[in-house]
Amino acid sequence: MDKILRINVGAEGGPRASEAGMGAYAGFAGRALTSAIVSQEVPPLCHPLGAENKLVIAPGMLSGTAGAMSGRISIGCKSPLTGGIKEANAGGQPSQVLARLGYGAIVLEGKPKGDDLYKVFINKDGVKISVDNSLRMLPNYDLVEKMKAEFGEKIACISIGPAGEMKMSAASIACTDIELRPTRHAGRGGVGAVMGAKGVKVIVLDDTGLKMRTPKDPEKFKDANKRFIEGLKQHPVTGQGLPAYGTNVLTNILNEVGGYPTYNFKQGRFPDAAKISGETQAELETKRGGMATHACHRGCVIQCSGVYHDKDGHYLTKQPEYETVWAHGGNCGICDIDAIAMLDFLDDNYGVDTIEMGATIGVAMEAGLAKFGDAQTAINLVHEVGKGTHLGRILGNGAAFTGRAFGVERVPVVKGQAMPAYDPRAVQGMGVTYATSPMGADHTAGYAVAQNVLKVGGDVNPLKPEGQVELSRNLQIATAAIDSTGMCLFIAFAVLDQPETFQAMLDMLNAFYGMSLTAEGVTDLGKKVLTMERDFNARAGFTAAQDRLPRFFTTEPVAPHNVTFDVKDEDLDKVFNW
Amino acid sequence: MDKILRINVGAEGGPRASEAGMGAYAGFAGRALTSAIVSQEVPPLCHPLGAENKLVIAPGMLSGTAGAMSGRISIGCKSPLTGGIKEANAGGQPSQVLARLGYGAIVLEGKPKGDDLYKVFINKDGVKISVDNSLRMLPNYDLVEKMKAEFGEKIACISIGPAGEMKMSAASIACTDIELRPTRHAGRGGVGAVMGAKGVKVIVLDDTGLKMRTPKDPEKFKDANKRFIEGLKQHPVTGQGLPAYGTNVLTNILNEVGGYPTYNFKQGRFPDAAKISGETQAELETKRGGMATHACHRGCVIQCSGVYHDKDGHYLTKQPEYETVWAHGGNCGICDIDAIAMLDFLDDNYGVDTIEMGATIGVAMEAGLAKFGDAQTAINLVHEVGKGTHLGRILGNGAAFTGRAFGVERVPVVKGQAMPAYDPRAVQGMGVTYATSPMGADHTAGYAVAQNVLKVGGDVNPLKPEGQVELSRNLQIATAAIDSTGMCLFIAFAVLDQPETFQAMLDMLNAFYGMSLTAEGVTDLGKKVLTMERDFNARAGFTAAQDRLPRFFTTEPVAPHNVTFDVKDEDLDKVFNW
Repeated sequence: MDKILRINVGAEGGPRASEAGMGAYAGFAGRALTSAIVSQEVPPLCHPLGAENKLVIAPGMLSGTAGAMSGRISIGCKSPLTGGIKEANAGGQPSQVLARLGYGAIVLEGKPKGDDLYKVFINKDGVKISVDNSLRMLPNYDLVEKMKAEFGEKIACISIGPAGEMKMSAASIACTDIELRPTRHAGRGGVGAVMGAKGVKVIVLDDTGLKMRTPKDPEKFKDANKRFIEGLKQHPVTGQGLPAYGTNVLTNILNEVGGYPTYNFKQGRFPDAAKISGETQAELETKRGGMATHACHRGCVIQCSGVYHDKDGHYLTKQPEYETVWAHGGNCGICDIDAIAMLDFLDDNYGVDTIEMGATIGVAMEAGLAKFGDAQTAINLVHEVGKGTHLGRILGNGAAFTGRAFGVERVPVVKGQAMPAYDPRAVQGMGVTYATSPMGADHTAGYAVAQNVLKVGGDVNPLKPEGQVELSRNLQIATAAIDSTGMCLFIAFAVLDQPETFQAMLDMLNAFYGMSLTAEGVTDLGKKVLTMERDFNARAGFTAAQDRLPRFFTTEPVAPHNVTFDVKDEDLDKVFNW
Repeated sequence: MDKILRINVGAEGGPRASEAGMGAYAGFAGRALTSAIVSQEVPPLCHPLGAENKLVIAPGMLSGTAGAMSGRISIGCKSPLTGGIKEANAGGQPSQVLARLGYGAIVLEGKPKGDDLYKVFINKDGVKISVDNSLRMLPNYDLVEKMKAEFGEKIACISIGPAGEMKMSAASIACTDIELRPTRHAGRGGVGAVMGAKGVKVIVLDDTGLKMRTPKDPEKFKDANKRFIEGLKQHPVTGQGLPAYGTNVLTNILNEVGGYPTYNFKQGRFPDAAKISGETQAELETKRGGMATHACHRGCVIQCSGVYHDKDGHYLTKQPEYETVWAHGGNCGICDIDAIAMLDFLDDNYGVDTIEMGATIGVAMEAGLAKFGDAQTAINLVHEVGKGTHLGRILGNGAAFTGRAFGVERVPVVKGQAMPAYDPRAVQGMGVTYATSPMGADHTAGYAVAQNVLKVGGDVNPLKPEGQVELSRNLQIATAAIDSTGMCLFIAFAVLDQPETFQAMLDMLNAFYGMSLTAEGVTDLGKKVLTMERDFNARAGFTAAQDRLPRFFTTEPVAPHNVTFDVKDEDLDKVFNW
């Protein structure tokens, strides 16, 4: 991880690869690196689909090592969805493989001269870029099958589906999982559209013949890793809840607290939530021969994923995440768990963000294109996106875009990006994160659900504004740092609750790099990342006016608690005062 | 004009009208009044289609008087197209009639409780609001016929077509002309969508039994008006060019100077310009029994409009304006003048802005939906808008929206609004106005073509950045003031060139109101209006970053002069430093 691979897709005679050391970016990885490169090299007022935008793909600090949970990858650019800076984060295998190949980042730059579609293959022998127009408009699953046939089974793929090729603002970038399926997505912000604009369909990574990255102090690293894993296993969320039911364990919890956005954010409880809960899902998965506990990348010890089989016992999709089940489920009034799993598969296959798509269908239902609860029409709508019909062109550009196309006022977005599965009125800490994150509405940017609802790492009343700004601030800082380590954000539950697990994480980083990073150093890194991101956004024209929720959240109370979002504007403006 | 009519469309039991004096708005009219009300009463972060937005319709200071050229009406709101403040300005009869009815403004407020469509009738006896769902989705021409049948021929109508009902961001508001045809449009910024969101299809005005507004000093007013008219008649632009050929006299001129944006702003000259020029158009109009010289409202002495007949000698549309002929013509590579006239008619009938629609079709051609030059497909595309198909929903929301739907990078917009018929690289003063006007790209906001090309009121080299900022500043100030008088902006040619005509205009205002307005006072008014507008935009989240042209104008030279837009960012930021 001591070099950056740049591919200038606009070079004369076709894309040209070049490699260089980390230079001024030395010490940065993951989100810190993607945000640094975007912030320094991309003109904030450029067109997201133009030559000046760059797509940066970066493994984290500990990716490619024996460290647990270190398989997250960061993908950054100027977002076609928000117009601001974007880091979308995914699991799966590519991060580990890319790190072992020695790359701190791949940067796609420039604009292709023609309409050819490119395939990039990287292994220990170098980088091969070739035209492959036979891949055009292939969905991700078919694409990966083709790559397996060509390059064998020991690969990891980073790819776009038809949505990315069509440069839709909801397009994701797929990363393959352990089974070499395109199920882990850098979903948010339309990063797939930027890859599509670069004309690159897939990056195939093969680390055959390469070893794990070795720590400066292997013994200390091994010991810290062991303590870190023990900490994760002993915490109830990472040791029990997530492994047993996956992220969808949250459906019943959020519904119970009245923070489960239902019917396009009209109420905080979904009467049929139990039918699509993690408990129901896990039971069904086990019964049908799928898996309720499974890792998305090697080295994961939480294993919050799973495998979802259809009624006939055949693979349908990976275990849909809570936010996906919510987006396509309660948010659209849909309680058919198989239909939701199908929607998850279709999203992954066409290459669109499940959160954005679910929110978009909610808005389309608001516009009268389907009735709330109509699962079949929801499925048809996602097919429209994959086919790129005119309706699909609308939906594939997200919730805000769909709202404008059909003249809908109730559109739950911030900075153009759809809100995830937590009502900001009933979980006000999340409202602060949605409003102020440089990423647009994003639950992962500062997951206040932990303290507001789960009471992990603190206890802040979710229905009141008090304490939410400080909470979101601290979480956003911690998250920006964790997103730079390559570690899965879910370590935060144990790390926030158990000082010894936090120390183990620090010890891993220090043993690996021979550093002496402290808690303060982690905070400084987080602040540094957020500062770069906010600076980019400011230069792109963002002000405090963009750090706001849509006004209906402050005027329409949400049942059952009948609360509005009550954090004052002037307090939102204090989130980044540190 | 001493009262404001407010219609709360969201009142219990249906829309409720109320009247009050001008209050704090006393002394304001036209654009000054619409911008004052929007700036003070509309929350800048509200949804443009929501209850908090207001649609303000205001005649100018001299509307309804015997003063020449005083028939312009201002329509303001928060724009669904730009997200900022909007004043769209139209000719036709409504301004005169509304002023004689005594209204300084009509303000539509709130959000309707149901889906009913309303018709508002105003005459000397008062205001009558009634449900009329038989008007649903009627195009403007049919609608006006229905209103004539119901209310007689002595009316003036302000209405929306299907596009406004569908709340499309390119929707205009139609004002009827002297012949009671819906040909004069407050086109820009999607004001029609806001009227649609208020559920009001048409406002019918009848001033039967009411007289012209009388000046404080009738003799002085009459004398000043006479001198004013003489000035207009003696100036070559207002006395000869515009009456003879209409605004389309500009096609040959702009093409000659290489500032005529062709094929979606790819070059500055259109080889077939002569086929669609004002000269050709006027000759054809006369030959077919139409009219090449005609007024759009009573009291107009320039008479830059006309009547366009089809091949069979039947009325097709009013004489298409230069910007319309350009948008649907050269910008789309179309040189069929009858097809362009048909597009003008369709735009008026469905109720969409001709500039936005032409630019949108240019972008759609760029996206491959049609070939440049394909007039029949262009016509079909406008029908899609009128029918509200999914493709129509895309196109009807304008050029930026269409660009995003189809992943097109080359989109000539500022603040989301399409650029008109002057290439900002070859007419750099216009570039400054496009970039910095609070309205988004708008030629009328500061018509630097006068000094850059026509050499009226000054001489500034169009190909160089020098002097453009000061020029645009002065023009934007003057325009904001003129837009408040109710006078047609075309008086500016004579007023800028002939000090005695400027004085005559001042004398008219002073004689009418018993004021002692000076040139400085006019400037102060303009600055005041711009300051209110920019203040609204700042609170809506606009910064200097939004006061920029799309980057391709600064990187791609335009033939034949091979110039880029060279006004520096820091100089653009000085436009409003006065």
